[in-house]
Amino acid sequence: MDKKKNISMAVIKRLPKYHRYLTELLKNDVDRISSKELSEKIGFTASQIRQDLNCFGDFGQQGYGYNVSELYNQIRNILGLTKAYGTIIVGAGNIGQAIANYIRFDKLGFKIQSLFDANPRLFGLRLRDIEIRDVDLLPEYLKENHIDIGIICVPRNSAQKVCDVLVKNGVKGIWNFAPVDLVAPDDIKIEDVHLSDSLLTLSCLLNDIE
Amino acid sequence: MDKKKNISMAVIKRLPKYHRYLTELLKNDVDRISSKELSEKIGFTASQIRQDLNCFGDFGQQGYGYNVSELYNQIRNILGLTKAYGTIIVGAGNIGQAIANYIRFDKLGFKIQSLFDANPRLFGLRLRDIEIRDVDLLPEYLKENHIDIGIICVPRNSAQKVCDVLVKNGVKGIWNFAPVDLVAPDDIKIEDVHLSDSLLTLSCLLNDIE
Repeated sequence: MDKKKNISMAVIKRLPKYHRYLTELLKNDVDRISSKELSEKIGFTASQIRQDLNCFGDFGQQGYGYNVSELYNQIRNILGLTKAYGTIIVGAGNIGQAIANYIRFDKLGFKIQSLFDANPRLFGLRLRDIEIRDVDLLPEYLKENHIDIGIICVPRNSAQKVCDVLVKNGVKGIWNFAPVDLVAPDDIKIEDVHLSDSLLTLSCLLNDIE
Repeated sequence: MDKKKNISMAVIKRLPKYHRYLTELLKNDVDRISSKELSEKIGFTASQIRQDLNCFGDFGQQGYGYNVSELYNQIRNILGLTKAYGTIIVGAGNIGQAIANYIRFDKLGFKIQSLFDANPRLFGLRLRDIEIRDVDLLPEYLKENHIDIGIICVPRNSAQKVCDVLVKNGVKGIWNFAPVDLVAPDDIKIEDVHLSDSLLTLSCLLNDIE
């Protein structure tokens, strides 16, 4: 695992895709796969795949290919999927509720423990088993519960304030759905899902073909 | 606009961010901005900004900076935001409903005209003003209505089938939320939002710091 420190952001961004395809291969009882076969499925070149997978160990064998379950476990390990993450959502609007209802995240180890919102009419309601709480209670909640990941689904104007509260109370990972670039100390990891940016990329591409 | 054909994917991916910041500057009545000031706000280097904006015209002036509203309009133009896009959503689950309720997309020119789902209990219901229809009626609907963008929010197993129907009936843009890589002809533009991939990137980064 020492090699991991050197994995570039470009490789990290590709790892979830490897994870998706390996999960599928395992489901279909595929035991081993060559970099060439994996390349045809996943769309990266075989040499790219060999290079990527080399970053974290030497487990492809010439003429044999990759042992699928070994590779799968290794990638789960690198992605940090061998443990559970205390997770909360701040903002119980459309996106916040959609994320809370998305059971797939639970299965991956992201246990959503609570939702927070500013709207008193929502306090005490539950989505699946997840209680919606007053966002004013967030600092207190964070002091009493170990939370690794805060999912920010509030409007853009409140997002930085929420981020500050999360960071101040020890949350190290932010999954940000607000259309704003958050500012946080370097040891805080932020991953953005900017939906409007993504839609605008699509319209830009569409416009290009006309 | 001739220059546009040469804009790289890397630049295209940065344009929505320019659009966000310029919208904000306009709201705050900022008339002009230097590449240095813009750099401090947006986080790209000043030289990167000059290079990006050079791709589509010569409207920064030495010693004056950029005229904000001119630049804003130009970027709107390149992003294809000067027109309206006929848009539908296939899959009225959590994410599909969240997208349908997200008014911001309307304001940007993406008019969501209908939702489609396979669940008969949803047929005829409305989200805001948007009717949920039987997905079996999708081909017919696409023949009778001009739709530019199909938003795919169905489970992974149905996503490719939905994509095929959209493409066969003239839809040129796909915004895909299913955790699967779709296959389509080259002239079809696909933009993916792979939520699980994004979350796994975050857990990978978190794991790296421990």
